[in-house]
Amino acid sequence: MKTAVIAIGGNAILRPGDRLTQENQMKHVAETARGLVDLIQRGFDIVITHGNGPQVGDILLRAEIARGEVTPNALDVCVAESQGQIGYMLQKALSSEFLDRGMNKIAVALVTQVKVSEDDPAFANPSKPIGKYYTEEEARRMEHERGWVMSLDKRRGGWRRLVPSPEPTAIVESTPVRRLVFGGEDQAEVVIACGGGGVPVVLKGGRYVGVEAVVDKDLAAALLANSIRERLFVIATDVDHVFVDYGKPSQRALEKTTLSEMKRLYDEGQFPSGTMGPKALAAIRFLENGGEEVVITATEKLVDALEAGAGTHIYRDDISR
Amino acid sequence: MKTAVIAIGGNAILRPGDRLTQENQMKHVAETARGLVDLIQRGFDIVITHGNGPQVGDILLRAEIARGEVTPNALDVCVAESQGQIGYMLQKALSSEFLDRGMNKIAVALVTQVKVSEDDPAFANPSKPIGKYYTEEEARRMEHERGWVMSLDKRRGGWRRLVPSPEPTAIVESTPVRRLVFGGEDQAEVVIACGGGGVPVVLKGGRYVGVEAVVDKDLAAALLANSIRERLFVIATDVDHVFVDYGKPSQRALEKTTLSEMKRLYDEGQFPSGTMGPKALAAIRFLENGGEEVVITATEKLVDALEAGAGTHIYRDDISR
Repeated sequence: MKTAVIAIGGNAILRPGDRLTQENQMKHVAETARGLVDLIQRGFDIVITHGNGPQVGDILLRAEIARGEVTPNALDVCVAESQGQIGYMLQKALSSEFLDRGMNKIAVALVTQVKVSEDDPAFANPSKPIGKYYTEEEARRMEHERGWVMSLDKRRGGWRRLVPSPEPTAIVESTPVRRLVFGGEDQAEVVIACGGGGVPVVLKGGRYVGVEAVVDKDLAAALLANSIRERLFVIATDVDHVFVDYGKPSQRALEKTTLSEMKRLYDEGQFPSGTMGPKALAAIRFLENGGEEVVITATEKLVDALEAGAGTHIYRDDISR
Repeated sequence: MKTAVIAIGGNAILRPGDRLTQENQMKHVAETARGLVDLIQRGFDIVITHGNGPQVGDILLRAEIARGEVTPNALDVCVAESQGQIGYMLQKALSSEFLDRGMNKIAVALVTQVKVSEDDPAFANPSKPIGKYYTEEEARRMEHERGWVMSLDKRRGGWRRLVPSPEPTAIVESTPVRRLVFGGEDQAEVVIACGGGGVPVVLKGGRYVGVEAVVDKDLAAALLANSIRERLFVIATDVDHVFVDYGKPSQRALEKTTLSEMKRLYDEGQFPSGTMGPKALAAIRFLENGGEEVVITATEKLVDALEAGAGTHIYRDDISR
């Protein structure tokens, strides 16, 4: 049986420019589910991870607007809420697709915590903007009243809260994920896990404690893939390939490459931090920690990439291809 | 190995009268987790189900207040959000308790859909009040603008939306629940499922479609217990026993009884619809559908009840005790 961890991008749930409504999300999720089930039908058992940017943004915004009347939850709880919401949409669409094709399979979303270290330098240097946009005056008040770190988004002309984005160090629920995907006496389930990068927790006095932070979803997905000892990690995004010299006349698509070549390109600064950077880093981490192959391609190209070599394939240096 | 499905009551998460804050919830959830882990340490593998009344209430209230600025989600998505939120709190508290006691176990919450029938008569007769309280004028507007069915809550003096509460007919994700609890080559996980009665879905054109309804959490828990072929179903609530002639001079606690006796008492109207009624009905359903024993007792009495016979025990008539 072939297996893979597949990190689906934000565009698999909502297309850029589309309004965040349930209808728009369900439409794209249904389309994504068709593509994923095409793959599953070809014999792949998969674990799916996903982002939660727009959805947790709305959860935070509602909480902020209603703050005078309803006590808001902390960020960790909001991330967990978004896992419930998006997990439900994905498992409903996938299980519907299985039903439609007469496949005896079930997709299920697991609420997932991701361990981070209290000593992570990210906690001293919040860098990830989340939630509502504020005026400068409001931003100053938030800094004063709530101790938030605020930053001006020059493009949008508003101020936003910055939260730490620490490194994931362990996936708390990797055992149940592994059990559902590989434990199969009969048929494996499709597991949705690590939504939004997982709910970040630290160990404090020997217990898990939620923290006000967000974990990069691609790094969390890579760690999950390593944790369940998966050999193949797939990042589905909005471009067919990883590009070198992106946007320059010398631009070229990467087709097959190695971990060491990828590290060289990463160190050269080939991958912008807002887009391909975190994905390239997640690929490197996965291969450094025992993974064999990373595929980065467009969501629509998944079957092509895994069956016919489309997209960018990155191999651990000792893996012959 | 002894196993059980345990339906924990609202008071296991938030005590009546306490404000719905994260601190209050985490305090009670930690206490509940200690009691549950006491039981697990005595050799029980368990599936936990829970309610979501106050939590989904707050989610709906925030959505309503922010409606002008943020598109609200439908009720099914809000229930899924509450599963993420409460599931996270429970699994964090349980996994922390395992860590603290050096137990190699993990608790994990599964987003759970519950199938209901489109033809359920409940859809023609919405009966379950949810969400915000409105004035009469607002209530009339909601009826007109949104087609909601509104009802006056005389005690609180406000109008609320009524939604259908159809019968659960299947637990969509029963296979992964069963696999995690019973599939254990090594140690079983503790599974949290069917939160808030599950996200209600109907089959439409061969696909799962979410509906604006809520499923009774005790009935959903009983059906989950039957679906995974569990023999023992436990309802943890705020009283030690089920009582007959409750509040009358002839009041007596039920200690051991049978399905047929329970049905007789239920038909007599011994169990009020707001409190013990749904639990008694869930117990009856579970035993009629293959279950062997139901225990109803206080959350604090779980170990006593399962090890020393405290609480109310109801047996299928053909089970010797």
